[in-house]
Amino acid sequence: MNDPALNTPSAAPSLAKLTALVADDLAKVNQTIIQYVKSDVALIEQLATHLIAAGGKRLRPSLTLATSQLLGYEGDRHIMLAACIEFIHSATLLHDDVVDASELRRGEATANALWGNEASVLVGDFLLSRAFQMMVDDGSIDVLRTLADASATIAAGEVKQLSLKGRIDAPMQDYFDVIQAKTATLFAAACELSAIAAGKNEDRENMRQFGMSLGMAFQLIDDALDYSGDASTLGKTIGDDLREGKATYPLLMAYQRANDDDKKFLQQVFEFSDKNTTDILIRIQEIFAKTQAISATVDCASGYLSKAKKAVDIYSDCYAKTALLDTLDFCVSRSA
Amino acid sequence: MNDPALNTPSAAPSLAKLTALVADDLAKVNQTIIQYVKSDVALIEQLATHLIAAGGKRLRPSLTLATSQLLGYEGDRHIMLAACIEFIHSATLLHDDVVDASELRRGEATANALWGNEASVLVGDFLLSRAFQMMVDDGSIDVLRTLADASATIAAGEVKQLSLKGRIDAPMQDYFDVIQAKTATLFAAACELSAIAAGKNEDRENMRQFGMSLGMAFQLIDDALDYSGDASTLGKTIGDDLREGKATYPLLMAYQRANDDDKKFLQQVFEFSDKNTTDILIRIQEIFAKTQAISATVDCASGYLSKAKKAVDIYSDCYAKTALLDTLDFCVSRSA
Repeated sequence: MNDPALNTPSAAPSLAKLTALVADDLAKVNQTIIQYVKSDVALIEQLATHLIAAGGKRLRPSLTLATSQLLGYEGDRHIMLAACIEFIHSATLLHDDVVDASELRRGEATANALWGNEASVLVGDFLLSRAFQMMVDDGSIDVLRTLADASATIAAGEVKQLSLKGRIDAPMQDYFDVIQAKTATLFAAACELSAIAAGKNEDRENMRQFGMSLGMAFQLIDDALDYSGDASTLGKTIGDDLREGKATYPLLMAYQRANDDDKKFLQQVFEFSDKNTTDILIRIQEIFAKTQAISATVDCASGYLSKAKKAVDIYSDCYAKTALLDTLDFCVSRSA
Repeated sequence: MNDPALNTPSAAPSLAKLTALVADDLAKVNQTIIQYVKSDVALIEQLATHLIAAGGKRLRPSLTLATSQLLGYEGDRHIMLAACIEFIHSATLLHDDVVDASELRRGEATANALWGNEASVLVGDFLLSRAFQMMVDDGSIDVLRTLADASATIAAGEVKQLSLKGRIDAPMQDYFDVIQAKTATLFAAACELSAIAAGKNEDRENMRQFGMSLGMAFQLIDDALDYSGDASTLGKTIGDDLREGKATYPLLMAYQRANDDDKKFLQQVFEFSDKNTTDILIRIQEIFAKTQAISATVDCASGYLSKAKKAVDIYSDCYAKTALLDTLDFCVSRSA
């Protein structure tokens, strides 16, 4: 793991070092997840297994594991805490998909599409409650406070996003408030937990800032990616946020910078977003090109990236630090 | 409060003594609720205020307050804990109404009818998370464990109820499992919290049993009331559970005791429960009368009532004890 050759920066940013760094611990996290998802109620296990076992990048729990290594933590509390983070994330996804009426996630049928909204709402509640049971098993009131606060902030952020639905003229600050609450807060908590587990109170704020900045950058790029893609497959792969009436950074920026004609067009499209055709999406991409909305979004993400780098830079060089720096670069340069 | 004249049993069971006993504390609970429901996000405050401020009987938090007095607790932790119980209950109601697609509760429009399912799901998440923040403010890991366990059990019970939907031949034990999890567990926790707050570990199990038995009786009577009512207003006031495909004690009992013809009729009605007419509901009431399904339900509730009484009987006579005994009688004899 600590082979100095591995500490050189990678040519193309990837999660390879993060994956290698946390592989052993992540296997234990997966065991813990399987153990805590067990229930006498068959439907809970089926649905939760579909959701959690299906996987995805496991980026958030991996951050808990990687920052624990950065801080030199040698116990095993970080395994349970990383599993907690994944449970809270999964509960949020289940309820998000109900709220957005999504039918696909990561190319797979969503739980609400397979089992119905009712089961998704209730199993989401179960996973959130189970996460709190796991925190109680861990026994730290600091952990409980961090994740209870995060959980309330996430829900409040989701409600705020809902109340901004369809508002293409919303102030940019509202967008930042929403993504900080609904996305960056859990990244921040995932990293802060390591400092708590390691008993390093002096690192809590720094780890929190690292996770928060990374989370902001991650969501900004996510929102940019929603508008990227090939024109020939436009209808399929881009514009979900537009259809759901979510005014994200690229759209808000394009609207602010657009000329009066384009402003009017964007406003109309956004109000009747369920009627988007490929023609409309192509004109939107043209407006995005004129206003440089996507590159503005990437620039904004890069600003957060720099903040996150500063938070990691204070630590001595080690494999965990390199893996985290690679992760930052990957999150901003990724194309999916 | 401790006027001995008030300690005589009431003629007609009512909540009058419970109400008098907890009035001052309940006013403080309401203040605490208002304080913790505050949010920068206007929609959260609107929806939560509609739900929580609208009130209802506040039976669960009143149990925390009354049992605290029974145990001679003199601090003020029970105020926050009672508010926690109401938050968890409210979160459950919000999600229940989404799952059942209910439009009315206590004769008022439900939150999902007014603000949509999306807001109800997310504000429910917020209230549950806020409850955990309140527990963290209280600072007791025993409280956190009790309510995290309760919360997971409630969600699991709701999922189990969902998977039993439409099964008129479900084993009676499944029904008991469901109501214990989804209803009685929160009553049990509401009462156990008093013993935790009072630092009386020796009373925890007894308080828990008291709340659990009361909760079972309460839900059985609720399920009986769903089938009671005047034939002329049948369609409006009864049979919600039937329409939602919930096989509760009275229906399961009627089905088990019915002759083959009636069994077949009940089975068919239940499978196509959205088509119920007044004629059908009248025949169902006739079958209920023949099989004595309602009185069997009340008998079953009375059994739990006796258990709950035993749990309170061990305490010295006092106003709180009388109020709790009255509450038991009221819960089984109530007609709404």
